[in-house]
Amino acid sequence: MKSWIETETKNDDVVLSSRIRLARNLKNAPFPNKLNEDEGKDIVKTVEEAFYSSPYTEEKFKTIYLWQNDEVTNQAYFERHLISKKLISNGKESAFILDNDETISIMVNEEDHLRLQTITGGLNLKEAFDYINKLDDLLEEKLDYAFDEKLGYLTSCPTNLGTGLRASVMVHLPALTVNNEIVGLLNALTQVGMTIRGLYGEGSKGEGNLYQISNQITLGLNEEEILTNLTGVINQIINRENLARGRMISKSRYEIEDKIYRSIGILKSAVMLRSKETLNLLSNVRLGVEMGIIKDIDKNTLNKLLVDIQPATLQKVSGDMLFDKQKNLNRAVLVKERLKNIQL
Amino acid sequence: MKSWIETETKNDDVVLSSRIRLARNLKNAPFPNKLNEDEGKDIVKTVEEAFYSSPYTEEKFKTIYLWQNDEVTNQAYFERHLISKKLISNGKESAFILDNDETISIMVNEEDHLRLQTITGGLNLKEAFDYINKLDDLLEEKLDYAFDEKLGYLTSCPTNLGTGLRASVMVHLPALTVNNEIVGLLNALTQVGMTIRGLYGEGSKGEGNLYQISNQITLGLNEEEILTNLTGVINQIINRENLARGRMISKSRYEIEDKIYRSIGILKSAVMLRSKETLNLLSNVRLGVEMGIIKDIDKNTLNKLLVDIQPATLQKVSGDMLFDKQKNLNRAVLVKERLKNIQL
Repeated sequence: MKSWIETETKNDDVVLSSRIRLARNLKNAPFPNKLNEDEGKDIVKTVEEAFYSSPYTEEKFKTIYLWQNDEVTNQAYFERHLISKKLISNGKESAFILDNDETISIMVNEEDHLRLQTITGGLNLKEAFDYINKLDDLLEEKLDYAFDEKLGYLTSCPTNLGTGLRASVMVHLPALTVNNEIVGLLNALTQVGMTIRGLYGEGSKGEGNLYQISNQITLGLNEEEILTNLTGVINQIINRENLARGRMISKSRYEIEDKIYRSIGILKSAVMLRSKETLNLLSNVRLGVEMGIIKDIDKNTLNKLLVDIQPATLQKVSGDMLFDKQKNLNRAVLVKERLKNIQL
Repeated sequence: MKSWIETETKNDDVVLSSRIRLARNLKNAPFPNKLNEDEGKDIVKTVEEAFYSSPYTEEKFKTIYLWQNDEVTNQAYFERHLISKKLISNGKESAFILDNDETISIMVNEEDHLRLQTITGGLNLKEAFDYINKLDDLLEEKLDYAFDEKLGYLTSCPTNLGTGLRASVMVHLPALTVNNEIVGLLNALTQVGMTIRGLYGEGSKGEGNLYQISNQITLGLNEEEILTNLTGVINQIINRENLARGRMISKSRYEIEDKIYRSIGILKSAVMLRSKETLNLLSNVRLGVEMGIIKDIDKNTLNKLLVDIQPATLQKVSGDMLFDKQKNLNRAVLVKERLKNIQL
């Protein structure tokens, strides 16, 4: 599978990426929040022994131990959606197994012993699930998972019980945001057991008009039902977003073009760019690409920027310890360089 | 004399233009507000006969009769600072005599029978006064001015009594505006008999950080004293503005460069530009030129834009009746074209 950043999606596609995550625990060990450092590292070792038992995994994957990294390095993995905040806060005994393409990440000692996740481009939940499911099978052959005949997979938090499956799709919803339909959508999704979050999950706002929509219910439905339901919901949302865009463009074409081109103008001229502002300006450029107004940039460049403008990633690239102001200066230089092919 | 628009001023000069206006009335006629249309037109004829009595004036000047123009044409003259709103509202019997370079305008039947004005580039009050004074002498030879030995020139409104002289200087004060010193300046100027107004005189705000500073007192001082006082005040203001700029740049250099470059980015990219926003963005570009940050545009281009982006001027150029939205679109096209040589 290709990384979501590199995936060539259709221009009119409002979906950026699909993510599947499975929560699993080992039968004979306390949940991570009850482990001391040594016990946690033993879990990491156990998982590694099971995982690297095939020549395929040995060649394609590597383990990254959070306790060996500085804070910025771990934060940069978070910004690439490869690990969670929780994994970082358990950094003294947590690790993750990563594939070379950075589409798979198996977190060890997050909230559960194992969090297997994959992110891929576009609306691709089934393919993503099939892939992560194979790795889950491989691990299950070697490891003794905590599993109950009635409840399914046992997890640290009851909201993950059962399938342990969370599927989520990242969508770009500028039109539903600007006309405020997003609020009603949030309520409607909650009622059908789905939830909507920002670019960086729980607690993050819909910065850059990017939203992650995911299933809340993991119990009482099988995996296929969960994925089918979510795919159905996403297709409805895509439809509503496209309708809202259509209304927007027929009502105020010049205003939208103005917003898009001004955003490009600012991104190409600013001396300093704050992270949140940049996300919002890039959303306008993305809208321009998705609507066929802007043709001289592709969405991969925009996807890559979403990650590369993040604070820790900027810091990693620079090497020096950067203060906020210097980050804003570096961010502006980076954005200008990446957008240099867009004509005003 | 050269038009203020065309004058090459030094880059670090915060003064755009100097304006001198003399108010005069004919002895044996009621003030314009008491005249009917025919009587008003008779005054115009009388003034013309006196004015065009020399081969010099006949060759260099022409009369424009407001009653022969449509509203947009008159409004466009106003936008070029050649006539006043009052002259337009008296349009059924008012006219003005204009030189080929558009630096001199002699309004007939404004608030007074005669308003002789000249605008030139930079801080040049004495030169401007000398020039308009000669034309005043020429007229005074032929016309019987209303003049009182004690009071001086008699005018319709007592605030112009005496010399009938109003001198004003247009200055660009972005730093004093942003740090709010402009408020204190307004009070201080009032106390020394000066006043501060916006780009289009009374009632207009300091749009684009442009202000006209002028004498309020016309009585009890002779012409030279008025001009010397105003020049002194302007030099102080220039000094304060430059000090404020110096503090601004040493405290927040990147922020200022950011504001300047973003303004250029927006001006070069916007699909629609409103008049007031454009003035403010152009002020930032002007600041960039004045501070030596922006080198690939000259101030004449910026001066010319100040006038050419105005609504009636845009309308005149287009020929068609333009709605506001179309004006905003045309304004953006015009600005983009004029700023095409500025690199981001």
